[in-house]
Amino acid sequence: MVVGGDAAGMSAASRAKREAGDDLEVVALERGHHVSYSACGIPYWVGGEVDSADALVVRTPEEHRKRGIDLRMRHEVTAIDVDARRVTVNDVERASSYPLDFDELVIATGAVPVRPDLPGVDAEGIFGVQTLDDGDAVIEALLRDRPSTAVIVGGGYIGIEMAEAMVRKGLSVTVVDRDDEPMTTLDLDMGRLVHKAMEDMGIDVRTKSAVERFAVADGRVQGVVVDGETIQADIVVLGIGVRPNTALAEDAGLPLGSSGGLQVDRRLGVVGHEGIWSGGDCVETFNRVSQQWGHVALGTHANKHGRVIGANVAGGYATFPGVVGTAISKVCELEIARTGLRESEATAAGFGFTSVTIEATTTAGYLAAARPMTVKMLAEHRSGRLLGAQIVGREGSAKRIDVCAVALWNEMTVEEMAGLDLGYAPPFSPVWDPVLVAARAAAAKVSES
Amino acid sequence: MVVGGDAAGMSAASRAKREAGDDLEVVALERGHHVSYSACGIPYWVGGEVDSADALVVRTPEEHRKRGIDLRMRHEVTAIDVDARRVTVNDVERASSYPLDFDELVIATGAVPVRPDLPGVDAEGIFGVQTLDDGDAVIEALLRDRPSTAVIVGGGYIGIEMAEAMVRKGLSVTVVDRDDEPMTTLDLDMGRLVHKAMEDMGIDVRTKSAVERFAVADGRVQGVVVDGETIQADIVVLGIGVRPNTALAEDAGLPLGSSGGLQVDRRLGVVGHEGIWSGGDCVETFNRVSQQWGHVALGTHANKHGRVIGANVAGGYATFPGVVGTAISKVCELEIARTGLRESEATAAGFGFTSVTIEATTTAGYLAAARPMTVKMLAEHRSGRLLGAQIVGREGSAKRIDVCAVALWNEMTVEEMAGLDLGYAPPFSPVWDPVLVAARAAAAKVSES
Repeated sequence: MVVGGDAAGMSAASRAKREAGDDLEVVALERGHHVSYSACGIPYWVGGEVDSADALVVRTPEEHRKRGIDLRMRHEVTAIDVDARRVTVNDVERASSYPLDFDELVIATGAVPVRPDLPGVDAEGIFGVQTLDDGDAVIEALLRDRPSTAVIVGGGYIGIEMAEAMVRKGLSVTVVDRDDEPMTTLDLDMGRLVHKAMEDMGIDVRTKSAVERFAVADGRVQGVVVDGETIQADIVVLGIGVRPNTALAEDAGLPLGSSGGLQVDRRLGVVGHEGIWSGGDCVETFNRVSQQWGHVALGTHANKHGRVIGANVAGGYATFPGVVGTAISKVCELEIARTGLRESEATAAGFGFTSVTIEATTTAGYLAAARPMTVKMLAEHRSGRLLGAQIVGREGSAKRIDVCAVALWNEMTVEEMAGLDLGYAPPFSPVWDPVLVAARAAAAKVSES
Repeated sequence: MVVGGDAAGMSAASRAKREAGDDLEVVALERGHHVSYSACGIPYWVGGEVDSADALVVRTPEEHRKRGIDLRMRHEVTAIDVDARRVTVNDVERASSYPLDFDELVIATGAVPVRPDLPGVDAEGIFGVQTLDDGDAVIEALLRDRPSTAVIVGGGYIGIEMAEAMVRKGLSVTVVDRDDEPMTTLDLDMGRLVHKAMEDMGIDVRTKSAVERFAVADGRVQGVVVDGETIQADIVVLGIGVRPNTALAEDAGLPLGSSGGLQVDRRLGVVGHEGIWSGGDCVETFNRVSQQWGHVALGTHANKHGRVIGANVAGGYATFPGVVGTAISKVCELEIARTGLRESEATAAGFGFTSVTIEATTTAGYLAAARPMTVKMLAEHRSGRLLGAQIVGREGSAKRIDVCAVALWNEMTVEEMAGLDLGYAPPFSPVWDPVLVAARAAAAKVSES
């Protein structure tokens, strides 16, 4: 039995069914209207780069059913009885409940967006962007109300991606962020580069700015009140982040970590509960660099989780090896990436470290196509082990973070990284790839200290 | 004393001088007109993407001299007396020779282009593209003679890059290659994709075609004769490859490997000769995957070599860790990359292996920006260790080879690679990065076999 029909849940259901075939009955319960869709694609759909919601759907309910999965849409699990191996299901449309027994349970309830408890937050014109229905609502509002000003609350991944979408739609955009700089998954100095670049694009970025309330007239949002000032807003998008959706699991007495995510082992079994599995945005994930568990909501992890759970449920053996903290994004032509630990995270994990920041170009500097990029790198004192990297730059910058992600995975030192044999040709890289330049600088600093 | 003033030689000279300062007298001897330039940039200069030859020069002779290097241009070393620690220098312009003593010697004589010994090869209108002077000559010919047809001899890196340059200049281009498919650094099946894509761009690609002779009239090339047929050519570019320029070293009794490159140790000391160093396109390089030495002419290696040699000459300790065989290139909008071993190389190195090829897209498939790419991956039987990878695809494909290069460096298995935490967001990758898809497929095939 699978609870939750998005990436982790339906990947698990599909793989389990594919591997076990008729030996395994698979029931999947989804409380919403959609399954197996790319929530990460919503900002690009809103921005007009994706034709329709259908394009974001990896597999329809009908397709899952054809593959032998008993998928029940608009069926919400309201309680889990772990000892009795039974759940209570609410058939939302019929408003009736029924019990359902399971041998193996997969909890894939995902995350819920953080919604600030502020006056006016329920006004018309204020949107989240978590589900396809949310995306639909924003697109309809853009068409119907022809707004000219947008305020995005939150300067993280969803915030900057929605800022880009609104810029593409021709709106005048303000991003309001309570932190010192946007993109707090980066260090402040790198976040400052993002801030500056967004301003250069014409986006008004208000940092250290907490929203006090929403200005509302006739039930519709008119503006966002920040530090006593009202910023005009025909439309408001909330992009403050998400938290693991684990109320159901908590009520059932399943173990949650300090982040609020479900505690799982390397096979993604819920700790202490044989035959109960969990993956995706509702679990804690092991960070291989900090050696600590935390909450990381990312579609790529959810998909990997699903495959691991599916294999295990079908009687196989598969493990999820953890993450190194890689994330990548863009706002218009600015690309942003990070992996490993940022300074505060490295300190919290007990590392002593040095950091360097270098400027480079995406291609050989003499080509017209060359674009500027900045690479920051953290390396441990004495050992010189890479601890983290951050990239902010123009087109062709961000995906280079993958080199650092693989280096972190293998616990490479920055000195060894400086010798890596990376692809070089003038249209792809300077003769010293920017990552190598940063590694060289970090190695020099480690050996000096 | 440094013999040869390009990437390896001048990097070595610069670093040695920087580290040792006044304690070290550095003399650099260059027989040509230029030092420290990017030969790899020549096709882009010819194609009009670089403004001038000056842009390709990293540092001028004057700049080197200001840094305290006694750089002598148009001075050619004609003999090395290893026992006497002395070379013979020919001052080319004065046509006079003189002896010069050294304590430490750096041989950085680079490579020479292979020039086919065929009738007519010395005719006007036939060009190599090894030096800045060569590039200048091609550009002058394009301006002066306004050619409309070009034949490129050789379908390797230089060949396809020059094909792109000629396409950019509006010429009708034919590439003549004696092999079954162009890009023999790839497996045949991947080379076939390159062949097809080049034809779709309007480039006439003649494979299995050996040039018999050049058709010449009044001293000027008129065409290239292949299998009895004359392909019209107003201009011909030779891109057949290079061989290590080691006649001088060989005459001095220094050890050459089977590829003709100088044999060096991990510090880039010439084997068996203390105080004699060598790097760049004239040495053999250790391949970490095949565990064999061979000739790899690449500017990025030459630059790394120079730094290692410079540190060692200055009394420090530095090593060159070898390569994994990464190379990257493009022809118009087609990107091409490889790392590790291709099938024939894996077999020659004694590996038993399996291979997979997958199709994917550069971004989430639902974005308009998504471009097709093909990834081929080789993995060792039983161990599942990655042995090599090849990528052919459109914009945004090729640099992903770096993930495989770092994985090879660390001797990762394809199964472990499939769990890597690579950057995911819709504009940068499908939810499963193409490299992960290939690794997953390879891992499945390894476990079946």
